[in-house]
Amino acid sequence: MFESAEVGHKVDKAKYAREEPKLREALLNAQFDLSEHGKFPVLILIGGVDGAGKGETVNLLNEWMDPRHIRTVAFGAPSDEEAERPDMWRFWRALPPKGNVGIVFGSWYTSPIVDRVMGKTDDVALEHAVDRIVRFENMLFNEGVLILKFWFHLSKEQQKKRLKELEKDSDTRWRVTKLDWERFKIYDRFRAISEHTLRETSTSNAPWIVVEGADARYRSLTVGKVLLESMKKRLAERSAPREPVKAAPLVPVMDNLKLVRDLDMTQKVAKPEYEKKLEKLQGSLNLIIRDKKFKKRSLILVFEGSDAAGKGGAIRRITGALDARQYSVTPVAAPTQEERAQPYLWRFWRYVPRLGRVTIFDRSWYGRVLVERVEGFCAEADWMRAYSEINDFEEQMTERGAIVCKFWLQISNQMQLRRFKEREKTSFKRFKITEEDWRNRKKWDLYEGAVADMVDRTSTEIAPWTLVEAEDKYFARLKVIRTVVERLEASL
Amino acid sequence: MFESAEVGHKVDKAKYAREEPKLREALLNAQFDLSEHGKFPVLILIGGVDGAGKGETVNLLNEWMDPRHIRTVAFGAPSDEEAERPDMWRFWRALPPKGNVGIVFGSWYTSPIVDRVMGKTDDVALEHAVDRIVRFENMLFNEGVLILKFWFHLSKEQQKKRLKELEKDSDTRWRVTKLDWERFKIYDRFRAISEHTLRETSTSNAPWIVVEGADARYRSLTVGKVLLESMKKRLAERSAPREPVKAAPLVPVMDNLKLVRDLDMTQKVAKPEYEKKLEKLQGSLNLIIRDKKFKKRSLILVFEGSDAAGKGGAIRRITGALDARQYSVTPVAAPTQEERAQPYLWRFWRYVPRLGRVTIFDRSWYGRVLVERVEGFCAEADWMRAYSEINDFEEQMTERGAIVCKFWLQISNQMQLRRFKEREKTSFKRFKITEEDWRNRKKWDLYEGAVADMVDRTSTEIAPWTLVEAEDKYFARLKVIRTVVERLEASL
Repeated sequence: MFESAEVGHKVDKAKYAREEPKLREALLNAQFDLSEHGKFPVLILIGGVDGAGKGETVNLLNEWMDPRHIRTVAFGAPSDEEAERPDMWRFWRALPPKGNVGIVFGSWYTSPIVDRVMGKTDDVALEHAVDRIVRFENMLFNEGVLILKFWFHLSKEQQKKRLKELEKDSDTRWRVTKLDWERFKIYDRFRAISEHTLRETSTSNAPWIVVEGADARYRSLTVGKVLLESMKKRLAERSAPREPVKAAPLVPVMDNLKLVRDLDMTQKVAKPEYEKKLEKLQGSLNLIIRDKKFKKRSLILVFEGSDAAGKGGAIRRITGALDARQYSVTPVAAPTQEERAQPYLWRFWRYVPRLGRVTIFDRSWYGRVLVERVEGFCAEADWMRAYSEINDFEEQMTERGAIVCKFWLQISNQMQLRRFKEREKTSFKRFKITEEDWRNRKKWDLYEGAVADMVDRTSTEIAPWTLVEAEDKYFARLKVIRTVVERLEASL
Repeated sequence: MFESAEVGHKVDKAKYAREEPKLREALLNAQFDLSEHGKFPVLILIGGVDGAGKGETVNLLNEWMDPRHIRTVAFGAPSDEEAERPDMWRFWRALPPKGNVGIVFGSWYTSPIVDRVMGKTDDVALEHAVDRIVRFENMLFNEGVLILKFWFHLSKEQQKKRLKELEKDSDTRWRVTKLDWERFKIYDRFRAISEHTLRETSTSNAPWIVVEGADARYRSLTVGKVLLESMKKRLAERSAPREPVKAAPLVPVMDNLKLVRDLDMTQKVAKPEYEKKLEKLQGSLNLIIRDKKFKKRSLILVFEGSDAAGKGGAIRRITGALDARQYSVTPVAAPTQEERAQPYLWRFWRYVPRLGRVTIFDRSWYGRVLVERVEGFCAEADWMRAYSEINDFEEQMTERGAIVCKFWLQISNQMQLRRFKEREKTSFKRFKITEEDWRNRKKWDLYEGAVADMVDRTSTEIAPWTLVEAEDKYFARLKVIRTVVERLEASL
C-alpha cells in the first residue's frame, strides 16, 4: 500500500501558490455548507510514521478552515475515568456531532498497531482488533459519518534523512530524541504491521488515503483536496434524496414466536412467600455488591417489556437492595438534541458506568429493534444491522468487566388490558394511561415478532436475555432479582 | 443550631405506619408534577455526622420516589480529570437538570469543614469558602434551583451509644473502624466548626434543615415531609405567574462610555510591518505554550466584539501559532436543550480546560450582560447579578491555574457598515450578512452602554479586559497576540 507514497511526489512553489488560495476558499465554503445544512459529521483520522507531517497538516487544516467548527483531539494515556471503561469509550466521547469536523490523533488504530509492533500482543489479538474496527467504522458510515483516514508515510530513506537534517540544525536539534532513533531501528517491523492493518481496514466505507509525507506542499494539497472532494460529494448526495439502503431479507427463524408464546404464564408466588424470599434475595444482592471483587467489575441491567409489564416495580426491588451512591437508573425516552446529532448508540455509551457501579436502563438500545422497527422510525436496513452492532457494544462492556443482564418482561394481552384499567383508577399520576399506550396495544403482534427476533439475535453467552413471565408481579420480581444474584455469584 | 436536634425526637411505630404510605404517595405525585411540568431542578445536599442515617435516608427517598428521575452522586477523592479543574467543576457536572432531583453526598461543604477540623486550613480560608458557597447557592436559587440542605445530627452521647451498639452485635461489628473512634475523639471540634459553617451558610434561599438522626422513623418522616412541602410550594408558585424580581438600580458610573469612545481608533499598522511582527509574536506564543511551566497552567481566551469587528480573524492568528492538539475553539451560539435545562453558566463550565490546554471562546458568558441585556432575553435583576457571578467564575478558574484574557474588539459604526457591505460581495459564505446583523446595528448605542458597564464591573486584576482598537485589523491582531504573550510571560 505504500509503494505510491515512495515515489518522491513534489509540488513546486508556483503551483502551490496558484492552488492554495482556491483550495482554502472552497474548503471554507464546503465547511459552511456542512455546518448550515450538512446533516452529517466529518471524522478525520490521522496516522502514520513520525516526522511525516501529521501535526503540520492538521494545523494547516485548522488554519485553512474555520477552527470554530473543528475539534482536534489527541489521545495519549487514558485518564482514570477512561481506564475504567471499555477502550472505545473515550473515542465515543470525542465523536464530532453533525455539522462538525472532528480530527483524531492517536485513534483506535494506535494501540493495536503499537502493541503488536512491541510484541505485547499476537497476531490473533491484532486480527480481533481489526475485525472490531471494521465493524465499528461500518456502523459509523451507516449512521452517516463521513470518515477520512489519512496515513502519512515516509520511506526508510526519507525517514533517516529527515532525522539527520533535524539534528544538523541547532534550532531543531531538540526535536530528535533517542526514542526517535530507537523507533527508526524497528522501521521495517512497524511498516509491515501497519501495512497489514491498513490493508485489512481499508474498506469502501472508510478507505485509507496514504499520503507521502516528505514534501510539505504535496501532502498539504493532497489532504486538502481529498477532504474537499469528499465533503462536496457527500453534500451533493445529501441534497438529492438518498436511495434507501436495501436490507438483506430477514432470514425467518422457524417459529421463533414460540420463545415468548410458550412461556408458562401461570407461574405464581403467594405474598407471604414473596416477601420472605424477596428479603433474602435483596440481602444476598446487597452483600455481593459490597464484595471486594465487585470493585473491579460493574453491573449493567437492561429492562425491556411491554407497557404495564412491571419494569418499574422490578427495578425498585433491585435498587431497594443497593446503596443509592452506587447505582443510577437511566430512563430512556426521546433522545435530546445533542444525542440526535450522534450515532444512535452514542447516548448509551454516555452512561457506561465506572468500575464498582451499577447502571440500570429502563428501556435501552433495544428500542432500535423494537419501537423503531415496529413504528418504522428507521429503515429496515438500519434495525437489521443493529443486532450485530448491539452485540459488539455489549461485548466491549463485558470485556472491560461489566456483567450484563437483560430482562424481557412478558405479560399477556389480557393482563395488559386489566392493568391499564386498574391504572386509570390509581392516584399515582405516573401510572396514568395515555392515548399512546392504547395505540401501542393495537400493535401487539408486531411487537411480539420483534421481541422474538431480538432475543434470537442478541441473546449471547456473554449477555444473555432472561425472559420473565410477568403475569404475576411477585413471581417476576423474584425471578429478576434471583437472576441478577446468580449471575453475580457466577461471575465474581 | 443543634439544640433542637438533641431533644430525643421519636416517632412511634403506629404513627409511622399511618403516615408513611400517605407521604410516599404525595411524594410520587409531586415528583411526577416536577418532571412533567416543573421547570426547575431539586438539589438535595446531605451532610452531617457519621451514623446519623444519611445513607439510609437517601436510600429511602430513592425507594419512596421514582428512582428514574433521581440521581444520587457521592463525591470522594477527585478523579484526575476533576483534579485539573477548579474544585467546583465536578459539582457543576453533577447538577440535576430541570424536572429532576439530584442528591449530593460529600458536597462543596465537605472539604472546607474537614480541612478546617484537621487543621489543614485556617479561619480565613474557611470564611473565604463560606462566602463563596453563599454566593454560589444564591446564584443557583436565582436560576430557579430548589435547594434543600439536610444536616443529620447526633449528640455526643447518641454517637457514643451508637458506636458501642454496633460493636456489640456480631453482624454489624465490621461497620465500626478505628477511624470511627478517632473521629469521635474530635467530635467537639467537628461540631463547633460545622455549627459555625451551617450558621453562616443558612440563608433564606438555601436554609439548612438540621435533622436529629437517632430515631429512624423520626428522621425519615421529617426529611420526607420537608421535601414534599418544599416541592409543593415551589410547584404552586410556578403555576402562578411569578412576581418579577426587582433589581437594585444600576448605579450610573460617571460617563463610563468614555471607556470605549475615547479609544484612539486611528492606530494603524502597515502590512509589511504587520507580517514581520506577527511572525515574531506567533513564534513567541508557540514557544511559551510549549514551556514546561505551562503544563501546570491553562489559558482561557475570551473574544467579544460587535459583528464584523474581526474576532474570527484574531482567533485564527492565535490558533495559527499553536498546535491543534492543544487548543479548542468554542463558538457560543444558542444553548442546546441540555444546556437550557441548567443554570446559564453551566454550558461554559463544560468547556473549562484541563491543565496544559488552551480554550478560546468566540463569544462567551458575557452574552448575559450584552445581548441578553440589550434584547431583554433575561430580566434586569438577572443580568445585574451576572457581573459578580461571572467574577466568581473567573476567580475560580484563575485559582486553579488558568490565565484568563478577555478582549473587546471595538470598531466604529461607519467601519461596521463598510465591512458589512464588503462582506456582501465576498465569496466566503460564512461571512454573509444576515437580516439579524442589520437589526443588531440599529441598537448600537444600547450595546455601547452595555459594553461600558461590562468592562467597568468585570475587569479585575485577575482577569482584566483588554479593549482593542479594531478599526485597523492588523493593529488589532497584533495587540491581541501581544497581550496574550505578555500575560503568559508575566504569569509563568
